[in-house]
Amino acid sequence: MNWKRILKILGFIMLVTGAFMILPMIVAFIYHEKDWVYFLITIAGLAVIGTPLYLIKPDSQNFFSKDGFLIVALAWIVMGLAGAVPFCISGLIPDYINAVFEAVSGFTTSGISILPDIEAASHSLLFWRSLTHWIGGMGVLVFVLALLPVAGGASMFIMRAEAPGPTTDKVVPKISETAKFLYIAYLVLTVAEIISLVIAGLSVFQACIISFGTMATGGFSFLNTSLATFTIAQKVIVIIFMFLAGVNFSLFFLVVTKKAKKALADTEFIWYAIIMACTVALLTVSLYISGKQLATFGETLTETAFAGVSAMTSTGFASGDYNQWPLFSQGLMILVMFIGGCAGSTGGGLKVSRVVILMKSLRLYVKKKMHPRSVNVTFFNKQVISDEVIKDILIYFGMFIIIYAASMLVVTTEESMDFGTAFASVSTAINNNGIEFHNAGALGFANYAWWSRIVFIIDMLIGRLEIFPIVILLGTITSPVRKAYRKIKRKV
Amino acid sequence: MNWKRILKILGFIMLVTGAFMILPMIVAFIYHEKDWVYFLITIAGLAVIGTPLYLIKPDSQNFFSKDGFLIVALAWIVMGLAGAVPFCISGLIPDYINAVFEAVSGFTTSGISILPDIEAASHSLLFWRSLTHWIGGMGVLVFVLALLPVAGGASMFIMRAEAPGPTTDKVVPKISETAKFLYIAYLVLTVAEIISLVIAGLSVFQACIISFGTMATGGFSFLNTSLATFTIAQKVIVIIFMFLAGVNFSLFFLVVTKKAKKALADTEFIWYAIIMACTVALLTVSLYISGKQLATFGETLTETAFAGVSAMTSTGFASGDYNQWPLFSQGLMILVMFIGGCAGSTGGGLKVSRVVILMKSLRLYVKKKMHPRSVNVTFFNKQVISDEVIKDILIYFGMFIIIYAASMLVVTTEESMDFGTAFASVSTAINNNGIEFHNAGALGFANYAWWSRIVFIIDMLIGRLEIFPIVILLGTITSPVRKAYRKIKRKV
Repeated sequence: MNWKRILKILGFIMLVTGAFMILPMIVAFIYHEKDWVYFLITIAGLAVIGTPLYLIKPDSQNFFSKDGFLIVALAWIVMGLAGAVPFCISGLIPDYINAVFEAVSGFTTSGISILPDIEAASHSLLFWRSLTHWIGGMGVLVFVLALLPVAGGASMFIMRAEAPGPTTDKVVPKISETAKFLYIAYLVLTVAEIISLVIAGLSVFQACIISFGTMATGGFSFLNTSLATFTIAQKVIVIIFMFLAGVNFSLFFLVVTKKAKKALADTEFIWYAIIMACTVALLTVSLYISGKQLATFGETLTETAFAGVSAMTSTGFASGDYNQWPLFSQGLMILVMFIGGCAGSTGGGLKVSRVVILMKSLRLYVKKKMHPRSVNVTFFNKQVISDEVIKDILIYFGMFIIIYAASMLVVTTEESMDFGTAFASVSTAINNNGIEFHNAGALGFANYAWWSRIVFIIDMLIGRLEIFPIVILLGTITSPVRKAYRKIKRKV
Repeated sequence: MNWKRILKILGFIMLVTGAFMILPMIVAFIYHEKDWVYFLITIAGLAVIGTPLYLIKPDSQNFFSKDGFLIVALAWIVMGLAGAVPFCISGLIPDYINAVFEAVSGFTTSGISILPDIEAASHSLLFWRSLTHWIGGMGVLVFVLALLPVAGGASMFIMRAEAPGPTTDKVVPKISETAKFLYIAYLVLTVAEIISLVIAGLSVFQACIISFGTMATGGFSFLNTSLATFTIAQKVIVIIFMFLAGVNFSLFFLVVTKKAKKALADTEFIWYAIIMACTVALLTVSLYISGKQLATFGETLTETAFAGVSAMTSTGFASGDYNQWPLFSQGLMILVMFIGGCAGSTGGGLKVSRVVILMKSLRLYVKKKMHPRSVNVTFFNKQVISDEVIKDILIYFGMFIIIYAASMLVVTTEESMDFGTAFASVSTAINNNGIEFHNAGALGFANYAWWSRIVFIIDMLIGRLEIFPIVILLGTITSPVRKAYRKIKRKV
């Protein structure tokens, strides 16, 4: 392991996190809030720890795949721990585990909130809370790579470990160029949404909060009722940008370079659009059958489109109380939570391309079982899917389900829990979604036992970082124990 | 497709099912019940349809893998439809879907009952109900193969398709010899349990019912409260035989041929025993922590051992009301439901060997991710696990979870459903388990909508036949539709 380089990069991450906190400080000044002092304290602390780490001189250029995973895992944990400090010392979330929960929920773009009364929080703290979405959405390490070549030869490993989805498309040959393009597209879309929402009647502050939550597929709002009280025009704007946030950002590069046709022919995009359309249609039918439709078809469709897009892209904004919807609608929303957005988007879940390749390979396998001597292949984006990719995806799926089951088991140790709530809560955490379904009488995330909240924090990190960084971190931490165990076993 | 041979074998299956019904007829005569007439009607009907089919002369010896899967799927459906007739025409279960549910639950050794009052049923109908367990436990087609070489060259395909678990061990070179040995072991253990239970105080009739349910890992009882009112001695006997029923029957062959040491060194058996012991230990701790333990440690351990062994082997007998146990205990029982018994046992679930190989290959994969250039292999029973086996198991796991999710989605269309009940009900059906967990106020299987009951019937068949026969049957049925669709698509 290249610990010196790892520590250097972690130091840099602390400084970057501190630098981002200048923005909520400015917000505090604008709104004459005293909360700037909490950000200043945090920034000072991060500078004191981060600067000496950043000044470490790594003694070798060797950097391995494992180091890339470790950096990503550690960087996100450091960000979560640091990002929680203002929440905690300001007294908004006095319990530090809860504050870390809120920060990790922010950075991982989950959007599950532990705050009982969001509207009571100051502008600057709300701004920071939503800014964590925006920072985490595109991946903060990608951002670091865009800024400067601090990582040396590690860039590719880090990008591979942090980027969502089964493949990393390099839209332009150089990796830092790719990162720069992705962040510019992200920034442009965010600004476009802010402007649209201001035109539609929100204040600049409100538009920033909602746009950070949308483009990062996060889901933190500034109201306790999420977006339920928004106008139809505002909801439609958010639906459009949520949909765009779930698209592979490389496709925007194709559009910019006037290859829009190629972008629309992308297999993953087509399936993303088809699944989304079917989901919205089924939700609409379900509301009509159960007699829970709204006054007009247009209003009903706005609600179901909002719910479907919010669930599948893993944004987690709510346009109403989905707990009142029929169980089938809730089940469908949880199902598309698992499918998630496209690879290379800010969306969570398994990712559309993984699910499509999984289904295609299952179909291929059944064919092979029926006709053992036939030769079959299957295609994705006009390329033959290799056995290696299929195996990767199958393994990913297997791990995902096992982590899911293990989380369920831990959460069921709580007295006030029931299977339905455990099922819905683990689903929303591991898919970085944010939509919460509760059985009647079940308590919210803030009231779960500390061990359940820690499990949810780990699940959110696992979901956002796509399992391996966290698994490899756990493997590295426990490796001395396992070595000792093997030694004892050999002697016995 | 070799339809003539498929029909011939189906005809033979009808005759065999009819022949088995002679046993409950005898029971009816012994207890002076008029129900013999319902069995006679069914036998006559089966003979009328089955004989001409059996007399079909297949025109070729060609028999493909696909035909083997189709025969297995069709044979089990025919058995379910035929086995349901006595329940239906006797008026015990007037609704034919419910009667098929009960018969399929019997043959697949699930043991989920739709009967509101089991004790009101006649001896002969109860005997038939439990006999379906015993017939289905070892696989009726294996039985057919043991009887006569009707299947021609298809034996291996059929055995491969019907035998539970990832590999088919041929304990002796000839396949019909293997089948004969397995059935003899099955019979000897069943008789041994009947004798033990009679010594422990049950009547011969009662001992038969319980022993059929135990050795087939079925779970139908003759009491509404399952085995809750049994003495500790009776419970211990059932625990021992449930444990044995979950072991790979090939190991009994090793024991008989004085290679017991080799049997105990079997990787799957070791893991089966370890997981079982951990489950029972955790259940015991859970009962003590929640203050729900019984008067003595011995009594508590009997209850937890019964629950753990019943859940993991997929028997589904209950020694008490597990809905009163802490949620963690229920969650653990559902988890081990999924692990299931050993390959080549009568137990359900994913099978221990599949789960162990899955875990080992995931571990191998993480190692490979950390050190991409290293060469790693992993072992099972001292043999290297091939990539082919790993892929098979990953695909199986993927299909299992997708079918699980699809079933959940269909079941949530019911109004009276909740996620917790859907989660527990689909789990118990697809794993052929039989233990039912309900949220307070949720209804039993008899009260579910007809489409949910059909989904559960399909899930039970999928669980027992390990997915592929049913998937390939569905593929064959829908193939004309799909061909027509492709034709239209090509023209457009």
